[in-house]
Amino acid sequence: MSTTDEISATGPHAAKKGALRGFAPPLEEVEDARKRTPSEEARTIIENDHVGSLATLTEDGSPWASIVGYGVLGNGEPVFCVSTLAEHGRNLPVDGRASLVVARPSAIPGDPLDVGRVTLLGACERPADEAEEATARGAFLEALPTAKHYIDFKDFSLWILRVERTRWVGGFGRMDSTTGPDYNVAEPDPVAGQADYAVQHLNDDHAESLLLMAQKLGGFSDATAASCVRADRYGIDLELETPRGKAQTRIGFAEPLTDPDGLRAGTVELAKRARG
Amino acid sequence: MSTTDEISATGPHAAKKGALRGFAPPLEEVEDARKRTPSEEARTIIENDHVGSLATLTEDGSPWASIVGYGVLGNGEPVFCVSTLAEHGRNLPVDGRASLVVARPSAIPGDPLDVGRVTLLGACERPADEAEEATARGAFLEALPTAKHYIDFKDFSLWILRVERTRWVGGFGRMDSTTGPDYNVAEPDPVAGQADYAVQHLNDDHAESLLLMAQKLGGFSDATAASCVRADRYGIDLELETPRGKAQTRIGFAEPLTDPDGLRAGTVELAKRARG
Repeated sequence: MSTTDEISATGPHAAKKGALRGFAPPLEEVEDARKRTPSEEARTIIENDHVGSLATLTEDGSPWASIVGYGVLGNGEPVFCVSTLAEHGRNLPVDGRASLVVARPSAIPGDPLDVGRVTLLGACERPADEAEEATARGAFLEALPTAKHYIDFKDFSLWILRVERTRWVGGFGRMDSTTGPDYNVAEPDPVAGQADYAVQHLNDDHAESLLLMAQKLGGFSDATAASCVRADRYGIDLELETPRGKAQTRIGFAEPLTDPDGLRAGTVELAKRARG
Repeated sequence: MSTTDEISATGPHAAKKGALRGFAPPLEEVEDARKRTPSEEARTIIENDHVGSLATLTEDGSPWASIVGYGVLGNGEPVFCVSTLAEHGRNLPVDGRASLVVARPSAIPGDPLDVGRVTLLGACERPADEAEEATARGAFLEALPTAKHYIDFKDFSLWILRVERTRWVGGFGRMDSTTGPDYNVAEPDPVAGQADYAVQHLNDDHAESLLLMAQKLGGFSDATAASCVRADRYGIDLELETPRGKAQTRIGFAEPLTDPDGLRAGTVELAKRARG
């Protein structure tokens, strides 16, 4: 969120944040579990939504924020379909510079600013040729099927944001910047669409397994309660209660998941491993 | 929504839109019910949220979109609390030009772009004096109470967006622009916080009353079904079935509502009037 977008975990507030949160350290040494890269985080957020906010430049160079629908090309570039009747549609032909911010709606209530979001900065261009125009059109209609009612109106045209850099913020203390080329080749997380459901299900029905994972695999043999706060293709993040205070740990899957429905198998394997 | 932001009801697509929607005209002449002004719409959207997207200018004049929390002053000016560690927080001291877009999350499923949103354009300034600083601080903390953890950190500062113009889009075919001064003096709708609940309740429990309102007060004596799609301090919007096809009508309350809980009394009066 804007107000705390970029408080770095190693920045000037790190100590204060730690003190505020007061997390207990692990008792046993465990291997760091793999995390999504910032570019993977960015690709995942962009891929799993189709409405964001676009910043363009007005005639006098002022920044103009508007709500925009978008489709996504195979390299993560967003496609817009804008009308010259709309202010952003009049801005782009004059100066294509633009950025798109997309925030992942949080399924978990809490601080409205503690949610994932990503800003893509670059320049919008019309598709390079007829083949790319067709691809862009298909991507937009796939994301927003009702656009079939207006996509062929004469005042509408397709624009592609060529991404030069990105800024991902995962919530308090989780953030990073990446380059366009790095973003273009990163893979969106295939299990993202199932993650909220999986987190809910783990907490509702498998609290004891989560606790055992924290004790046996997460470095907190003294944990007394565990709940899952995030799940992704590489592992799950847990929040813990211990006699020494609250704590956090991350537990990695045996292998990165590739199947959109893979979270079930991944967590079953973790539970087995925790039971030894 | 970006893609169709500004298709005007009287613009080049009006005929096509009419044809697409095919609404039947009223059978009986009825007085036009009062609507919220575009500035009232804008004030209402801004007042009922506290997270939006901010467009600022980077060092080289590119537009930068980011998620931002905001509070609201008595004249509708948004207040931000940003860190110089965040990109937007570094942008504002160099060039204060900015715009904020806020979209009202729709409680009613449907086209993701058919939702209300407003863009405020202007320039961000630090509060003019200590008194305004205190007011701005209070407004921000009221909107985002967890900001108490960082609002006094040295790298954070308060900024007020002095609104020069606004662009409100209420959904397909409902939109308008207003000036900053007009926005500043408009009143947010006091019943907005209850409107989604009221719409749901009317549809769930009072479908027959809605139908009678459409027949007796809305100009559609041949209506066979009615559902409420919007409610505000001045009246309710209905979607109708008739033997001549779908139709829409708006029915005004006897008096504008001033009580946040006034929708119940307002619709009870309409139901009585419809029963004659």
